[in-house]
Amino acid sequence: MLIVQKFGGTSVGDLERIANVASRVSESKKAGNDVVVVVSAMSGETNKLVGYAEHFSKNPARAEMDMLLSAGERVTASLLSIALQEMGYSSVAMTGRKAGIRTDTHHTKARIEDINPQNMKSAIAQGKIVVVAGFQGVNENGDVTTLGRGGSDLSAVAIAGAINADLCEIYTDVSGIYTTDPRIEPKAKKLDKISYDEMLELASLGAKVLQNRSVEMAKKLNVNLVTRTSFSNEEGTLITKEENIMEAPLVSGIALDKNQARISLMGVKDRPGIASDIFNKLASAEVNVDMIIQNKAHDGTTNIDFTVPVGDLQDSKSVVDGFVKKGDINADSYNEDICKVSVVGVGMKSHTGVAAKAFSTMADNNININMISTSEIKVSMVIDEKYAELAVRGLHDAYELDK
Amino acid sequence: MLIVQKFGGTSVGDLERIANVASRVSESKKAGNDVVVVVSAMSGETNKLVGYAEHFSKNPARAEMDMLLSAGERVTASLLSIALQEMGYSSVAMTGRKAGIRTDTHHTKARIEDINPQNMKSAIAQGKIVVVAGFQGVNENGDVTTLGRGGSDLSAVAIAGAINADLCEIYTDVSGIYTTDPRIEPKAKKLDKISYDEMLELASLGAKVLQNRSVEMAKKLNVNLVTRTSFSNEEGTLITKEENIMEAPLVSGIALDKNQARISLMGVKDRPGIASDIFNKLASAEVNVDMIIQNKAHDGTTNIDFTVPVGDLQDSKSVVDGFVKKGDINADSYNEDICKVSVVGVGMKSHTGVAAKAFSTMADNNININMISTSEIKVSMVIDEKYAELAVRGLHDAYELDK
Repeated sequence: MLIVQKFGGTSVGDLERIANVASRVSESKKAGNDVVVVVSAMSGETNKLVGYAEHFSKNPARAEMDMLLSAGERVTASLLSIALQEMGYSSVAMTGRKAGIRTDTHHTKARIEDINPQNMKSAIAQGKIVVVAGFQGVNENGDVTTLGRGGSDLSAVAIAGAINADLCEIYTDVSGIYTTDPRIEPKAKKLDKISYDEMLELASLGAKVLQNRSVEMAKKLNVNLVTRTSFSNEEGTLITKEENIMEAPLVSGIALDKNQARISLMGVKDRPGIASDIFNKLASAEVNVDMIIQNKAHDGTTNIDFTVPVGDLQDSKSVVDGFVKKGDINADSYNEDICKVSVVGVGMKSHTGVAAKAFSTMADNNININMISTSEIKVSMVIDEKYAELAVRGLHDAYELDK
Repeated sequence: MLIVQKFGGTSVGDLERIANVASRVSESKKAGNDVVVVVSAMSGETNKLVGYAEHFSKNPARAEMDMLLSAGERVTASLLSIALQEMGYSSVAMTGRKAGIRTDTHHTKARIEDINPQNMKSAIAQGKIVVVAGFQGVNENGDVTTLGRGGSDLSAVAIAGAINADLCEIYTDVSGIYTTDPRIEPKAKKLDKISYDEMLELASLGAKVLQNRSVEMAKKLNVNLVTRTSFSNEEGTLITKEENIMEAPLVSGIALDKNQARISLMGVKDRPGIASDIFNKLASAEVNVDMIIQNKAHDGTTNIDFTVPVGDLQDSKSVVDGFVKKGDINADSYNEDICKVSVVGVGMKSHTGVAAKAFSTMADNNININMISTSEIKVSMVIDEKYAELAVRGLHDAYELDK
């Protein structure tokens, strides 16, 4: 097999851990696989460099930041390659540039545009283990760029796509994807497999494990993604396309997002285009609107409810205030004490009654549902935050996820 | 003026010192100059990375070492550029690659083959301060290389040559070139100017300040080199071509090299090509032979005396042993307790009696001269090591260098 293995900052946090990664990589190689390794900076290193920059400026130039921050991954990649060579393996360390990772010109949050895998492929053909500095690429001007948060995961997934790897393993300190947060429901079970779409919906569950950007790219490039821990040999969770999951369970997991706020607009003036006006202005203010409900009251006025991340609440208020002042909206109210509980599963597509069970579970637990939103593979409910854990445990139980 | 300023590891040793460098650079810019800055890694950083590599391997691959070690200079260059921008200056940080520094493929001790100054020139034309990561370049395969010891000085000199800079200032913790080592002769004076050739001869004096590689390149590219301290505004020493020094003093300085050993070969067989044989074998063993004296004894056999750096003594013995075993040499002896005292000055070219004064100074101090070697601008004498300081002070006095 051709495998891409990505090790994050904590997995390469010190020299002993880098040695540990080297022996794990060597095991894959010994087992007959071709291996490309993608590494992050040693944990703490990037923060140290950011701290250095902030000593000089609150808003350092992004091009300079990229040159600065990309140094960390180069150090780890060089060291891991040296460790592998000392163990008798043939290996080569590559910068993002050498690995052929071409990005756009958006410094500190560049997007990968293209990968030219020629250097990696010829090294693999020579039997070498390729060790790539993650998180970085090079733009059309020849300048080094970095990929922003979760960038090394992205490097790994993009490389796996470009070289047609059979597997892309993302090693972290978490052993995989669970049916729900085990801190809330101790009966939560680790999933063997999950589809890309489910993983995307479970983002709030898996946020600590995988960024949506990486899952989206894996889906697009059809990369079999495995998330597992570097601290034991425990099997992880395979994230793959739906067709690869033989018997999809009705429901895969329960996700909880406490980072939501609800905005209620009462007495919205009844003129064409008013809703589009409001949401366009919110979009311009870069507010990330999630669920939206609109209904007409008996008196003919319209009420609009929507949710936003708590962090976007201030910006949302500014936008709404403008409409209130113009008299387009009679009254507005804000509620941060809510949460969103979601039931996710591709099985829903072919089974009825999944949503109904979610609603009845809420009713059985005397939890009032404020808002509902559904997709093909998801039912999301906004409820009072104090019921969050109760709802998650109730749903986990109702769909028998511990079985 | 167009000035290249190079700051070594101690000058950029911590964030405060980087800030100090930024204000020094800004002063040159404010004074109306165009400035290109070349920086080393923060002091201790390169040693830390070397230590990391040595944790894994006693003999790490050179390509990996270059990718590893080149990270340090990138960090400093980025930070200095950020600091300058925060002060309101327009600046840009460049890697060796971006600065157009092309080297050969000898990893960890690459030679600069060519500089394409286009990126630097267009940034300068835009009024920007250019901050270049020293010590690094890129080879024909697109891999990063490093230039070995003194590499950042070389980067600076080569860049100064490529952009036709008026001046290349090398900032260190030493204030310039002295007539002799002030620790031996407190009356030693700092020189205002010195020629390239004198500087090269004074290498043993200036070793802590400038590597011969940099001076040779400055001479070749006709770069006006200034060595000065970054810790005060004291003027440094200009190293330039002889024609630029109006009234060259007879003697510029006295150099002392204690790192020499003398090898005496007695009864060398009298056959054609024997000497060439011996010195070819020494060259193959990478022994750096300095002074050589050959003379015929009354009995018709030949004696050969030569000096080598103490570090090459073991290798020299192995070579000599081979000839002794074959019967080509009757006896060999070794003496590490010697030193080489040199009188250096371009004025010697046009003045007679300089060497005679050196010999009589030795005689006045009852110092026996073991070997003598002269060049157009230098008289070197090998004497017993115990007389080293006495000889230096005597010569410094005899040529009135404290005046």
